[in-house]
Amino acid sequence: MNSFGHLFRVTTFGESHGPAIGCVIDGCPPGIAITPEEFANDLSRRATGKTRHTSARNEADAVEILSGVYEGMTTGTPIALLIRNTDARSKDYANIARQFRPGHADYTYWQKYGIRDPRGGGRSSARETTMRVAAAVIARKWLGERGVHVRGHLAQIGDVVPVGHDWSVVEGNPFFWPHAAQVPELEAYMDALRKSGDSVGAKVVVEADGVPPGWGEPIYGKLDGELAAAMMSINAVKGVEIGDGFASVAQRGTEHRDAMSPNGFASNHAGGILGGISTGQTVRVAVAFKPTSSLRLPAESIDVDGNVIEVVTTGRHDPCVGIRATPICEAMLALVLIDQALRHRAQCGDVGPVQPRI
Amino acid sequence: MNSFGHLFRVTTFGESHGPAIGCVIDGCPPGIAITPEEFANDLSRRATGKTRHTSARNEADAVEILSGVYEGMTTGTPIALLIRNTDARSKDYANIARQFRPGHADYTYWQKYGIRDPRGGGRSSARETTMRVAAAVIARKWLGERGVHVRGHLAQIGDVVPVGHDWSVVEGNPFFWPHAAQVPELEAYMDALRKSGDSVGAKVVVEADGVPPGWGEPIYGKLDGELAAAMMSINAVKGVEIGDGFASVAQRGTEHRDAMSPNGFASNHAGGILGGISTGQTVRVAVAFKPTSSLRLPAESIDVDGNVIEVVTTGRHDPCVGIRATPICEAMLALVLIDQALRHRAQCGDVGPVQPRI
Amino acid sequence: MNSFGHLFRVTTFGESHGPAIGCVIDGCPPGIAITPEEFANDLSRRATGKTRHTSARNEADAVEILSGVYEGMTTGTPIALLIRNTDARSKDYANIARQFRPGHADYTYWQKYGIRDPRGGGRSSARETTMRVAAAVIARKWLGERGVHVRGHLAQIGDVVPVGHDWSVVEGNPFFWPHAAQVPELEAYMDALRKSGDSVGAKVVVEADGVPPGWGEPIYGKLDGELAAAMMSINAVKGVEIGDGFASVAQRGTEHRDAMSPNGFASNHAGGILGGISTGQTVRVAVAFKPTSSLRLPAESIDVDGNVIEVVTTGRHDPCVGIRATPICEAMLALVLIDQALRHRAQCGDVGPVQPRI
Amino acid sequence: MNSFGHLFRVTTFGESHGPAIGCVIDGCPPGIAITPEEFANDLSRRATGKTRHTSARNEADAVEILSGVYEGMTTGTPIALLIRNTDARSKDYANIARQFRPGHADYTYWQKYGIRDPRGGGRSSARETTMRVAAAVIARKWLGERGVHVRGHLAQIGDVVPVGHDWSVVEGNPFFWPHAAQVPELEAYMDALRKSGDSVGAKVVVEADGVPPGWGEPIYGKLDGELAAAMMSINAVKGVEIGDGFASVAQRGTEHRDAMSPNGFASNHAGGILGGISTGQTVRVAVAFKPTSSLRLPAESIDVDGNVIEVVTTGRHDPCVGIRATPICEAMLALVLIDQALRHRAQCGDVGPVQPRI
Repeated sequence: MNSFGHLFRVTTFGESHGPAIGCVIDGCPPGIAITPEEFANDLSRRATGKTRHTSARNEADAVEILSGVYEGMTTGTPIALLIRNTDARSKDYANIARQFRPGHADYTYWQKYGIRDPRGGGRSSARETTMRVAAAVIARKWLGERGVHVRGHLAQIGDVVPVGHDWSVVEGNPFFWPHAAQVPELEAYMDALRKSGDSVGAKVVVEADGVPPGWGEPIYGKLDGELAAAMMSINAVKGVEIGDGFASVAQRGTEHRDAMSPNGFASNHAGGILGGISTGQTVRVAVAFKPTSSLRLPAESIDVDGNVIEVVTTGRHDPCVGIRATPICEAMLALVLIDQALRHRAQCGDVGPVQPRI
Repeated sequence: MNSFGHLFRVTTFGESHGPAIGCVIDGCPPGIAITPEEFANDLSRRATGKTRHTSARNEADAVEILSGVYEGMTTGTPIALLIRNTDARSKDYANIARQFRPGHADYTYWQKYGIRDPRGGGRSSARETTMRVAAAVIARKWLGERGVHVRGHLAQIGDVVPVGHDWSVVEGNPFFWPHAAQVPELEAYMDALRKSGDSVGAKVVVEADGVPPGWGEPIYGKLDGELAAAMMSINAVKGVEIGDGFASVAQRGTEHRDAMSPNGFASNHAGGILGGISTGQTVRVAVAFKPTSSLRLPAESIDVDGNVIEVVTTGRHDPCVGIRATPICEAMLALVLIDQALRHRAQCGDVGPVQPRI
Repeated sequence: MNSFGHLFRVTTFGESHGPAIGCVIDGCPPGIAITPEEFANDLSRRATGKTRHTSARNEADAVEILSGVYEGMTTGTPIALLIRNTDARSKDYANIARQFRPGHADYTYWQKYGIRDPRGGGRSSARETTMRVAAAVIARKWLGERGVHVRGHLAQIGDVVPVGHDWSVVEGNPFFWPHAAQVPELEAYMDALRKSGDSVGAKVVVEADGVPPGWGEPIYGKLDGELAAAMMSINAVKGVEIGDGFASVAQRGTEHRDAMSPNGFASNHAGGILGGISTGQTVRVAVAFKPTSSLRLPAESIDVDGNVIEVVTTGRHDPCVGIRATPICEAMLALVLIDQALRHRAQCGDVGPVQPRI
Repeated sequence: MNSFGHLFRVTTFGESHGPAIGCVIDGCPPGIAITPEEFANDLSRRATGKTRHTSARNEADAVEILSGVYEGMTTGTPIALLIRNTDARSKDYANIARQFRPGHADYTYWQKYGIRDPRGGGRSSARETTMRVAAAVIARKWLGERGVHVRGHLAQIGDVVPVGHDWSVVEGNPFFWPHAAQVPELEAYMDALRKSGDSVGAKVVVEADGVPPGWGEPIYGKLDGELAAAMMSINAVKGVEIGDGFASVAQRGTEHRDAMSPNGFASNHAGGILGGISTGQTVRVAVAFKPTSSLRLPAESIDVDGNVIEVVTTGRHDPCVGIRATPICEAMLALVLIDQALRHRAQCGDVGPVQPRI
C-alpha cells in the first residue's frame, strides 16, 4: 500500500531515478490557501546536500501543483504534487542490478516481486519521503490555523547525546541539535566517521503542541498506534517510543502515572496520549534510525546467480541518515494528526465542549 | 476503528463489564479445521487469575462460535466469536464514574465522547485483548500449516533482565521467563511489589520463525510498520522495536548490516525485515509495557466537576500488566502475518519461486 | 467483505440456520438514546410471517445489545447486536447439501470456497438483511434528529403497477403498496401465484427527504454510486435507478435537466443528486428484485457429483421476495446517508453555510 | 474518495482545464509488459473529436509513465500515469464561474466545498474518465492473459434500439452500434438532434467473457454490487442493471432461474452472477446515461448571488454523452474484475479446482 491516512489520504509514487516522484492528497479540506513556494522551506530542510554531512544529490525539488488548487485555494478535490528527478545521473546499473547489498531492500524486493528497479534503490530509496514532507506542508498549515504545531530535533547520534536543550538553536545547525555548544563536537565526530567510511545511527524526537484532548480512536486506530506505524514506515527506522517509551519498563506506577489537577497534568510520562486518545498535553515521539548500510567498506554478499561477492557502495551516501530525518518525522506526525482530527469531528462533531478540561 | 487487518480482518466489541465481548473475523480462508476447544489454551495463557501475580478475575472465557464454521471447518464467511462476561461483579460504580484515574483513559474518553462507561474501564479495559488472542488462534493454525510459528517471552520486569535464555522453560513458569533459575527471584520481587502497593513495567519479545521472504508491503504497508501499530495498539504499550531497535542508534553500519552468503544471513540485526519486507529470517519484535496505573496508593486527580480528589483503586489489578502480555503480543504478530501473507499472494501470486533464496 | 460503510461501519455475521446472526456498528456517534425495544418496529416490518403472502418463518427476532450502549446512550464504542436463531428447524440437510438449486448461490459458493453451509442457504440467505434493518434503526434515529427521513413503497409486482399514490396508505397494507384500492387485486394476484407454485419479481422505490445539499463525494464515493452498491448488495436485486433512471435514455436534455430558481428546483429528474452530491431535493432510488428461485415447481440441475437432477424446493418461501424488501431498501438508504453525512463533516466541517441555498 | 478498488487500486486526479490529469495504480501485479503506446488505442476509442457527433476537444492524450515500470515491465510499485491538458483553452471564466448550470454539479460542489473550480467543469468533467480507461489498459492486459475479455456496445440512443446484433461491426462505426444497417439512420438522427440544439440519453451494454466461477465476495463486496457502484460512478449515469435487470420484475421464477446441466447453464438471465459471485457465464451489465445538460438552448437558473438568470452553454459539447461511454464502461468492468480476482486468490488461494464445474 502506497497510501497513508484514512480521510486525509496521501498516495505517493515514484522511484529514486525514474522520471519523477509525486503524491496525491485526497480528502483535504477546502479553502486552505497554498502556493508552490510554501513547499520550499520544509523540502529544503529535508533536502540532501544541505551540509557536507549529508549526501551530495543536489536537486531544486521544485513542486508543481497539478490539481486540487484553484486561485491559490484548495478546492476539496485531490491535490497532485509532482517533482521531476533532475539529478538522476545516467550511469550503468548493470553491475548493481545483479548484486544484493546487505542491509538494503534489494533481496527482499527481488524475492517479493521477482523483478527489481535497481536505479538508486528504486522505490525503496528515501527519496520517497520527499513527498511526505510536501504533503505535510498542507497538513501543518491546517493544523497551525488550529493552534497545533509540530517540531523536532535530533536526540542522539551514535553514542552522543545532547547535554542541554534549547529549542531555539535547533534550526540553526545542520544537525537539528538542541544544544549549540555541542555542534563543533558533532562536526568533528561526523568528519571522522565519514573518513572512516562507516556510518552511525541516530535518534529523533518530535513533538506536537496544542493538540486538544480527544484526538485518536481507541483500540486499533489509537493515536499512538498510528504514530508508531507512521514512524516505522520511514526508511531505516527500527524503533518507536511514545512518552517515556522503553524507560517505562523500569518505572514504578507511582512514578509513571501523571497526576492531574485543575491546573493540568503534573508531568507527561504518557507523552500526551492515554488509551490511544490525546490528553491535551504535548504529544512526544522518539524514533530510532539504524546506520545506513551503503558504505564504501566492503561487505560480504551474493549476486542474483547465488555467487559470493563483495559489495562496495560508491557514490553519495549519508554517513548518518538520521541527520535529515527530523523533518520527515515531523511530517509523519502532522499527517497522523490531521487525519485523526478529521476522523474525530466526523464521529464526535455532535459532542460539545466537554468539562472539566484541564 | 475497532477493526484490525486488511484481508484477514478482525473487528472486536464489548466492554469489560458489559454482557459480553466478542469479535468478527472476516476474510478467513475457507477449509481450516477449528473447534471451540482450540481456543482454550491460548486464552488460558492470557487469562487473569493464572497466578497470584496477576489479578483475580476468574472467568471460564468459554468461546462460542456463532458463525462461519460448518461441521468443524471454516467456510470463508465471517466467524463470530462470543464470550459472556460472567464475572462482571455488580457493584456501585457511582463513585468511580465521577473520577478520572491518573494514567487511565478515563479523562480522554470523557473528552472525546462526552460520555463514558465507567464499569471496569469499559471499552479501554485490557479485557478487549481476549478477543485478539481468540482470533489469533485461527491465524496461528493457518500459519502453522505453512511452517510459520510464533512464540514469545518476557525480557524484562522492572530492572530485572534474564541472565540466560532457554525457550523450553518459558511456558513452565508464570512469567514466560526464559531463564528458570531466576523464577524464585521474580516471585520474591513481585511479592514485595504487591505488598508495596506499587506496580512496575515490563518488556516482551515475540518472534516468528518460518516466515518466507517477501511478506510485507513497501512504504505505508511495511511489515514492521504494521507490527509497530499492532503492538502499540495493546493496552499500556509505550514502545516497539524491530530487530536491534534503539540499540541501532549507537551501532556502526559495518556492525548493523547483516552480511549475506549462499548459506544465509550471517546475523539478524534487522529482525527479519528489510525495506518493510520479510527476509526469511526470524522476525523479532520487542514491546515496552508501562506499569499499571491502578494502585491502592493514592494519586492526586480531579473529578467530573473539576474538584481536586485523591484516587485509590481497590479491587483486583495486576502489579505488572506485562506478565500476561506475552500471548497478546504473539496474537498481534500472528494477525499481522496472516494478513500480509494473504495480501502478498493477492498481488504476487503470479510470481513463481524466486532464486537465489538463502 | 462483510462490512458496509466507511465511518459508520456495519459488519454483519451469521448464517440462516446457525446459532445466531448479529452485527457490529463501529464509528457510531456518541450520545444517541437507544433501547432494545426500538428495533422491534422495523424488524417486524421486515419480518417473515407478516402475512400469508410471505413465508412462515416465525421468530421473535429479539435484539440483544451486547456493547456500545451505556445507560441507554451510545458511547461511541462499537455496538454489537445479536439475534438468536430460534426457529432454525433441525432437519436433515444431507439431501439439499448435495444439490445446486438453479438461481441460487449454491453453485457459486461451492466454486468459490470449496465448502458450503447448506442449512437454509447459509450465509447467502436473506436472513442476513435483518441486521441491516437493525443497524439502520440507529442510523435513522440520528438522521431523523437532523430532519432527514427515509421511507419507501412497492412500485411494481410482476406486471401490476400502482394506479394512484398516497404515502399514508403504504404502511396500512401488507404490500407497502401506495394505492389502497388495488390491495384486493394484489391479494388475489398473490393467492393465484402461490397456488401456481411460481414466483414473481417486484420493484421498490425508496426516498429520503430533508437531505441537505452537499452530502456525497465526487468520483468514486458518489452518493448515487454508493446507493447503487448498497441496493445491489441486497439479495435478489438486479437493477438500480436514481431519479429517472433508465427512462433518462429516451429523454431530451431540455426535458431532463432540472431548472433552478430562487424558490428551488422546478423538477427532480435527477433524483436529488448531481455530480454524486445531494442537491437538497428528495433522494429517490428504484430497485428491481428478481422472482425467487425457490419453487416447488421442479427445475433441472446437477448435484455435487455432476449428475443431472430435478430440484424441488419444499418448505417456506416467499412467492415475491420484493414484498418485504421495502424496509431493507430503506435501511440501506439510511446507512449510506449517515456514512456520507459523517464523511462530509469530516472534510467540510470548516465550510460554513453556503449561499445561495434554494 | 478519488480511489477505486481494494487491491488493484486506482487513484485519479486532475481537473478538466488544470495543468494535467493523471492516476496512480497501486497494487498492480509485477511482471506485466506494458509500453506507453499500448494506451493509445483505448484512449482513442474514448477520445473526444472522434466524429462530428462528439465534441471537438482535440488532444493527443499522450500518456507518460512516471513510475512503476522498469524496462517495460510492471515492478509491483505504484504506476503513475500523466496526461498534460494541452487543449485547455484560456478564456474568461468569470461569467460561468458565477452561474449554476441546471443538470450540472455546479451547485452541489458550491454547496459542499464553498469553492468551485469553474474551468470546464473542473473535477466534475468527464475528462476524469480518461484515466479510468488508461488504468484499465493494464487491467485488461492482465485479465486477457487469463482468458477474460471485456467488450461493449451501445444498446439505445434516445428511442432508437438495435434491430440486429453483430459484435463484429461494433468497432466499425462511431456509435459502437451492433447493427451496421442502422448507422445511416443514427447519423441522420444525431445530425437533426445537433441542429435542434438538444441532447439525448443512451444505454450501454458491457460484457465480460471467460470469468471463472468464484470471483466476487458475498454480502457487501458482491461482484454485482461493485459493478453497480463502478458504473454509477461514471458521469451522467442514472441506472445499472445486471443480467435481465428491471425486466426481472415482471418475470416468473420459472422463467428467470437459469437451469443447470453438466453441459452448463441453459440460459443467462442472471447476467453471470449469483449471490454476488460469478457463475462462469458471461457477466452482463447495462448502463443508462442521461442526456447532457450543456445545451445552447437556454435554461432557467440562478447565479451565485441568487439572481434569476438564463444559462446558455456555448462551446463544444456532445449531444449524446453515451456515444463514447462504451470504452469507459468497459474500463470500469475490467477494473472491478481484476480487483475481485486478486481478492479471490488472497482468500481462496488454498482452494483447489472445485468439481463439478460446468
